[in-house]
Amino acid sequence: MAAEACGNPILAVGSVAFDSIKNPFGEANRVVGGSVTYFSLAASFFTDVRLVAVVGEDFADRGAAVFAGRRVDLAGLQTVPGETFRWKGEYGFDLNQRETIYTKLNVFEQFQPVIPESYRSSPFVFLGNIHPRLQLEVLDQVTAPRLVAADTMNYWIEGTPDELREVLKRVDILIINDSEARELSREANLVKAARVLKTMGPSTVVIKRGEHGVLMTASGDGEFSAAPALPLEEVFDPTGAGDTFAGGFVGYLAGCGDTSDASLARAIIYGSTLASFAVEDFSIDRLLRLTKGEIADRFRHFKRLTHFDEA
Amino acid sequence: MAAEACGNPILAVGSVAFDSIKNPFGEANRVVGGSVTYFSLAASFFTDVRLVAVVGEDFADRGAAVFAGRRVDLAGLQTVPGETFRWKGEYGFDLNQRETIYTKLNVFEQFQPVIPESYRSSPFVFLGNIHPRLQLEVLDQVTAPRLVAADTMNYWIEGTPDELREVLKRVDILIINDSEARELSREANLVKAARVLKTMGPSTVVIKRGEHGVLMTASGDGEFSAAPALPLEEVFDPTGAGDTFAGGFVGYLAGCGDTSDASLARAIIYGSTLASFAVEDFSIDRLLRLTKGEIADRFRHFKRLTHFDEA
Repeated sequence: MAAEACGNPILAVGSVAFDSIKNPFGEANRVVGGSVTYFSLAASFFTDVRLVAVVGEDFADRGAAVFAGRRVDLAGLQTVPGETFRWKGEYGFDLNQRETIYTKLNVFEQFQPVIPESYRSSPFVFLGNIHPRLQLEVLDQVTAPRLVAADTMNYWIEGTPDELREVLKRVDILIINDSEARELSREANLVKAARVLKTMGPSTVVIKRGEHGVLMTASGDGEFSAAPALPLEEVFDPTGAGDTFAGGFVGYLAGCGDTSDASLARAIIYGSTLASFAVEDFSIDRLLRLTKGEIADRFRHFKRLTHFDEA
Repeated sequence: MAAEACGNPILAVGSVAFDSIKNPFGEANRVVGGSVTYFSLAASFFTDVRLVAVVGEDFADRGAAVFAGRRVDLAGLQTVPGETFRWKGEYGFDLNQRETIYTKLNVFEQFQPVIPESYRSSPFVFLGNIHPRLQLEVLDQVTAPRLVAADTMNYWIEGTPDELREVLKRVDILIINDSEARELSREANLVKAARVLKTMGPSTVVIKRGEHGVLMTASGDGEFSAAPALPLEEVFDPTGAGDTFAGGFVGYLAGCGDTSDASLARAIIYGSTLASFAVEDFSIDRLLRLTKGEIADRFRHFKRLTHFDEA
């Protein structure tokens, strides 16, 4: 990867959490999770990440431990009195279905994203899946970013639609999953859904379809890019796969500094590549021991998977 | 397409039927359908097809009308006293779900495939989804085909597993959908399922995933090819999409005469291309007015859809 040579920093805001995960293969208790954690670990293979989030005093020096030696700046990680956001989820044998056992917002409930001065001119911004009001507050604190990517979820689509609409007007790339795309656009068909979502603001819509891959609008009228997911024999823990995808996707774009259609098409493969690793082990464990060589190998694997010559 | 220049004939056996189809967009009554009809219409864009099936006297000259001017030899289409196979299906707004209103085998119940002398040395053979015993009878009447492809369905997987196993030992390419792959292999994971199916005989397994595209085993250990389905704004009638896929897939291979991995990878795109047209209108209507130019255009559309350069 030629990523290290250039590299535009990404300002990334989202949740840092303690996760507890149970599935048929085992259990992980109170491990580090959260959307911006997965995002940052993935993106930091390509460029510098400037993390903004909040944790409680119980988080202690876990952040330093997780991100040690990585291109992740923790100046924006606030520590406040109280407990860190906690989430517990349980998966059955169908790992596409998960049940949330509890969500305890804790310190996240009062989270006010404060963007450090040194972060404000970040050329790339990623708004993780948090309250749209907070996403707007982040945008109000940055100066003319070159590219803003955002995620959201059904909770905000249903609960705070007006604020979400305001966010979308200021977003270049929307990265959401298929059910969210359908709900937000009120279109069952994903092609129509993507077209509706583009009218809300984003110039590019990336729809994550889990084990069925990714669909992305391209700039040409009616043109799309599509990538299958890697056919995996064992999916161990899908927690964080979507955030990891976003990290690989935005990380690649920021690292190479090129947002052409050709670059976007590679970005969905880098996103898919990172996500395919994330699901191989519990929590962030596989990302922590991932190497650049493995990423390059798997990128080439994706090429063999999808390549065909013209006749 | 350079297909016309060479071209190995395909012997294709399956059902010819009168279909009645109802969906939210309208109704088609007693239109020509059947697995080998869709297969032959698709494959005949690439090479000569030698059709083997049975119809009743009520079919009259419908075969000549449907296949007029196409590269389809009807010497093996038997007409016998009685009524043609009839099927009626109904789709709701979710076109992935269909209900069979009735299946009347009629003359198909006593079908004995008789392979005309002129067909017996066909280098390519496609065994449509019929009783495995009949599939074996076809194989017993042909002389050393170069490639045998076959389809089957849950009815035979559950009802005649032993005879199906005998067929699989003599098949080079198995083309089935995802639920059938899972049922036949007793593996929920499609990567594992494909591996198990290869141990039953076929050197290549092609798994049709409907709107989620196609997964195919490649010759390398653990390697796969994958293609997304074309993102379609309107799916009008999915009847016959799987048979049309098989026709484009086997048709391309036979037409070009090359069964290398590179050719197989193109074949899944040709299959997907033909299937993407079939679903645009009721019954075989879109295939009847399809042109080679449209196929070539859409093949290139697939290329743009899935292409990415290495970094």
